Amino acid sequence: MAEPPRTRDPIARLVHALGKLPGIGEKSATRLAFHVLRADSELASELASALLDVKAKVRLCSTCCALTEVDPCTVCTDPGRSDAIVCVVATPQDQLAIERAGAFRGRFHTLHGLIAPLDGVGPDDLRISELVARARSEVEFVIATSPSTEGEATALYLARLLKPLGARVSRIATGVPIGGELEYADRVTLARAIEGRREL
Amino acid sequence: MAEPPRTRDPIARLVHALGKLPGIGEKSATRLAFHVLRADSELASELASALLDVKAKVRLCSTCCALTEVDPCTVCTDPGRSDAIVCVVATPQDQLAIERAGAFRGRFHTLHGLIAPLDGVGPDDLRISELVARARSEVEFVIATSPSTEGEATALYLARLLKPLGARVSRIATGVPIGGELEYADRVTLARAIEGRREL
Repeated sequence: MAEPPRTRDPIARLVHALGKLPGIGEKSATRLAFHVLRADSELASELASALLDVKAKVRLCSTCCALTEVDPCTVCTDPGRSDAIVCVVATPQDQLAIERAGAFRGRFHTLHGLIAPLDGVGPDDLRISELVARARSEVEFVIATSPSTEGEATALYLARLLKPLGARVSRIATGVPIGGELEYADRVTLARAIEGRREL
Repeated sequence: MAEPPRTRDPIARLVHALGKLPGIGEKSATRLAFHVLRADSELASELASALLDVKAKVRLCSTCCALTEVDPCTVCTDPGRSDAIVCVVATPQDQLAIERAGAFRGRFHTLHGLIAPLDGVGPDDLRISELVARARSEVEFVIATSPSTEGEATALYLARLLKPLGARVSRIATGVPIGGELEYADRVTLARAIEGRREL
């Protein structure tokens, strides 16, 4: 896939373009391209217009940094949501996952990444200044980053940053997932589950 | 993914459109859509134009039924190729695989499928009339369909059709693949390899 795409035929160009998507190698790209060729034209035109539309219309909310068509976004302007609690997530996908769970009715803030020094991602690469601008004493920030090394480090960093500004900072619970088998849970998860036990 | 795509936001529309591609479920489609959002605009515009281009420019060669921009296609008009031998393949991908092997310098013919009564694909659904039109006594057709039930049935059907027209019909060899371990070859392949043995 090293040749310049302009010089090649339309099928090779499509294979090349599809191969730039993550997780799609040359074989999958070829399979997808031939599917597009066989399918009726609507599939190609619908996908093409959706691709252009998404780049033309979607931008970041100036308050919470979510992907949105309107600024501020509909979550930031929703009168049914509480201003007192802000859920801080790494990615728009994570916000989507929490929204789907339906258990949170506050606001959100998207960092667009996690602090990962090994990958060269520092605090300045994330939407942290926008988060700091939202810190007030009557606000609680729930740091909902994954319980991974980067997620934990980012949570710690944010707590140290936000607490001096008077805000309350909390962290989502870690433990054995619902429906998970205790027998198969890893040692760290089990240790956390015992550590974080709650009185019944 | 059942809602009508028009009523939803651009991200949901893109996820929906990507989800129509084979082997891409809602989770993969979401991951791809967010990748497109993060990547620079060129990725989306290149892919969109490649999708539209391929449908606008690519059609079937009126001689060999290959996918092509010019009719007849460059393989049919290549003066360096022999007219005496025509390799009959099921799909454009199969032709590509044989071209990559670099061992064939004749013409091609693409059937666009295999006879598969269980899937409702009969001879009339394939590009067989175009193949028959090419049958002459000085031409050999090598049926290069896969050694599967459908591939074998299609080969047999074509042999019965083309031989009475005076054409020679042959079949690609089946046997243990190069680099394959005899120990792990299946029984049918081994039986075929012995049956099709060649003197050294």
